[in-house]
Amino acid sequence: MSTTPVTGGRRGRPGYDRATLLDVAVAAFNERGYDGTGMEELSRRLGITKSAIYHHVSGKEELLELAVDRALDALFAVLDAELDRPVTATERLEETVRGAVRVLVDEQPYVTLLLRVRGNSPVERRALERRREFDHRFAGLVARAAAEGGVRDDLDPGFAARVLFGAVNSLTEWYRPDGGMTREAVADGLATLLFDGLRRPSRPPA
Amino acid sequence: MSTTPVTGGRRGRPGYDRATLLDVAVAAFNERGYDGTGMEELSRRLGITKSAIYHHVSGKEELLELAVDRALDALFAVLDAELDRPVTATERLEETVRGAVRVLVDEQPYVTLLLRVRGNSPVERRALERRREFDHRFAGLVARAAAEGGVRDDLDPGFAARVLFGAVNSLTEWYRPDGGMTREAVADGLATLLFDGLRRPSRPPA
Repeated sequence: MSTTPVTGGRRGRPGYDRATLLDVAVAAFNERGYDGTGMEELSRRLGITKSAIYHHVSGKEELLELAVDRALDALFAVLDAELDRPVTATERLEETVRGAVRVLVDEQPYVTLLLRVRGNSPVERRALERRREFDHRFAGLVARAAAEGGVRDDLDPGFAARVLFGAVNSLTEWYRPDGGMTREAVADGLATLLFDGLRRPSRPPA
Repeated sequence: MSTTPVTGGRRGRPGYDRATLLDVAVAAFNERGYDGTGMEELSRRLGITKSAIYHHVSGKEELLELAVDRALDALFAVLDAELDRPVTATERLEETVRGAVRVLVDEQPYVTLLLRVRGNSPVERRALERRREFDHRFAGLVARAAAEGGVRDDLDPGFAARVLFGAVNSLTEWYRPDGGMTREAVADGLATLLFDGLRRPSRPPA
């Protein structure tokens, strides 16, 4: 915990809280790369001294850790939120995809940063480990949905899981909040395409 | 064109041709980032002097240009290969997805590098422009397939195009040639999931 009083919110008042500091740092990491962003750059963008930053965090590595944990915590919350509802694995799977879309939209800069992590430090390696754990649990959900007959059993569950999340994760590359599609429209559209397919459904004979 | 004679192939003989030089450079760019890779690093990896590298290419920027153009040329060849075949837009679309999967598998390091380009130089901006042109043509193909009734018309073609390529491009992140799935199995699996959907097809009543 920081001992510096929080002197302002995100707008209109001087000073920074940790959340704002993190937003600015994540934007810088995404634009210039984590390795390419120094504390000087963060200090410049925030308009505060480096020592003022060190009142809030121990350094760049802690900012990265806070950022990737925020993305990962949100994604795990989606998996965990479904665990005790009395639904089929197939329903859980579809809800997990929709929930992940919502996280990608709500936390786009944080997930973007997470997806670029390559394992170059203990913090990055821990993030990769949590991503693998997430992928493993998600693939297990696909396998259970296949076992109950809700999804195809002619595709390997691990393969299907990777394609689903490949499509979801691609949102970090192209989704723009001002592009005319709401978060729910994206969640619905993605679920429709991935679960029902792009091909036009054949109509029952009249 | 280089005036240096090509003194060897990829293995077993001394010297480098441009193709080998490019392979080594692309591997370095993908591991360390383009900005983080200097000519010293390339010289070290190749075991040749920097001036020997300059016999082949004018510098790092030319290596990047050759690399991203190789990926882009292969992707455009997939779009163009289908143009004069007497098939429906829907068949063309599905074949383009399969063809793009083959390119991603065959040229994985080159496409990986292409997808990381952010527009920081004239070469990068030209690559982004070619990517946009590709996306535009691909979205047009989705729109024609929808117009002829082959794919859903309840999804925006631009949205559908981005989701399809999001799934295809994700191969750069997770596909491993030694992972047990052949290139054709990946092309078939991806086309099945994206066009027919993950949901188990309902069986006709007995």
